[in-house]
Amino acid sequence: MIRVRETEIRVRYQETDNMGVVYYANYFIWFEVARTEYLRSAGISYRQLEEKGMYLMVAGASCQYKSPAKYDDVVRIQTWISKMKNSSLDFAHKLYIGDRLIATGESIHVFTNSSGRPIRIPKEIRLLQV
Amino acid sequence: MIRVRETEIRVRYQETDNMGVVYYANYFIWFEVARTEYLRSAGISYRQLEEKGMYLMVAGASCQYKSPAKYDDVVRIQTWISKMKNSSLDFAHKLYIGDRLIATGESIHVFTNSSGRPIRIPKEIRLLQV
Amino acid sequence: MIRVRETEIRVRYQETDNMGVVYYANYFIWFEVARTEYLRSAGISYRQLEEKGMYLMVAGASCQYKSPAKYDDVVRIQTWISKMKNSSLDFAHKLYIGDRLIATGESIHVFTNSSGRPIRIPKEIRLLQV
Amino acid sequence: MIRVRETEIRVRYQETDNMGVVYYANYFIWFEVARTEYLRSAGISYRQLEEKGMYLMVAGASCQYKSPAKYDDVVRIQTWISKMKNSSLDFAHKLYIGDRLIATGESIHVFTNSSGRPIRIPKEIRLLQV
Repeated sequence: MIRVRETEIRVRYQETDNMGVVYYANYFIWFEVARTEYLRSAGISYRQLEEKGMYLMVAGASCQYKSPAKYDDVVRIQTWISKMKNSSLDFAHKLYIGDRLIATGESIHVFTNSSGRPIRIPKEIRLLQV
Repeated sequence: MIRVRETEIRVRYQETDNMGVVYYANYFIWFEVARTEYLRSAGISYRQLEEKGMYLMVAGASCQYKSPAKYDDVVRIQTWISKMKNSSLDFAHKLYIGDRLIATGESIHVFTNSSGRPIRIPKEIRLLQV
Repeated sequence: MIRVRETEIRVRYQETDNMGVVYYANYFIWFEVARTEYLRSAGISYRQLEEKGMYLMVAGASCQYKSPAKYDDVVRIQTWISKMKNSSLDFAHKLYIGDRLIATGESIHVFTNSSGRPIRIPKEIRLLQV
Repeated sequence: MIRVRETEIRVRYQETDNMGVVYYANYFIWFEVARTEYLRSAGISYRQLEEKGMYLMVAGASCQYKSPAKYDDVVRIQTWISKMKNSSLDFAHKLYIGDRLIATGESIHVFTNSSGRPIRIPKEIRLLQV
């Protein structure tokens, strides 16, 4: 069974643009917030991982936009780990406003040490895998 | 022959993060700057298109990160139109620091009117196609 | 008695910079979130004010930085209206991490219509004044 | 005689907001770009200063907004050092679109080492003072 975690984010005025909707790059900032909260909900502090010298580098990211989000909307972000290998990991997201699916997204990560060399994914994260 | 245009962007301090490198979402902001400059270099002002009620909505975007960018680096962004249909359009990018390829990226767009309905791509942009 | 409202914001990775602390411009984004929540806690939706054609323009803003904030810190923002005239309004803020005061800030606003002309402050906001 | 340096910045789509103008916090990002370019024009690389362990911390910042900036506008930022003491330094800015003054701003800085302790301002910067 896949572990899915939901994070809510309220759209900030700063995140809107000239078109009156959320600027497209900001979805990737939300994905990052959702990843942090996904880990926290499993008892894992990403900040502490970094303090121990482990980094979740981003190797790729994508987003598919279906319907706009506006200022003050509450966006629900469903997050799960869609793939896990020795040192790499994919996150996937579905974004909703109410019941309306507004976007989907993915990011590809590599766990590295502070010199940027891939390392084995920490055990507490490996255990999150199905 | 494909029309490629190069834009240079110097990394702002604000664009860096805790890891000492450019935060991943900022590449999508650079793609947008590169799209605007690509059009401008063909005599097209995207601002004027919007003032006439034509909008280049983003339907999808992705980025592959190969090597980090740091504060004050000058990033060269090669930009071209990789696909064009009746009302949709793809941009593609290659990002370099010096000769080092640091990232590639793509975005998928739909031309719409101010109510968000797809419209035929304006002639001056259709003419950019090979 | 002054009405003070507290908003909590968790520092996003995107908000940090090369120095490992929150980039200084981001405090002003937090001020805006705090203003929205201040109004919401009084039953006022700033989004609805804008939908009715009333805008809280920013005429000035300042921040005094005392101690840095880091990724994943929870920042408590105390917010109040420090001055109110016919069509203008000042917000003031104190920011804390735990009991440590990390910053203070102010912003000066003018209420305008959609053409940017000053208007009388809406009654529900005037009533917030002492 | 005061040394003034001018930097040009073209407004990015990302920098606009729901009101159709540049979001107020972004002016502080521009101030930082202007500071970097001010130093560069005097042969000083702020990046290299940081690499040598010297940091220009921000202790305070303010902006007065007079007239909005819009997407694709070219903003000219005049920058100068308005005050200099042993380890602290103030920058001042005037922002123009064409001949129209759109904003003024100031920032207060302290030079520190990597542990955040104030240090004497590097000689090449002290020499910039009148």
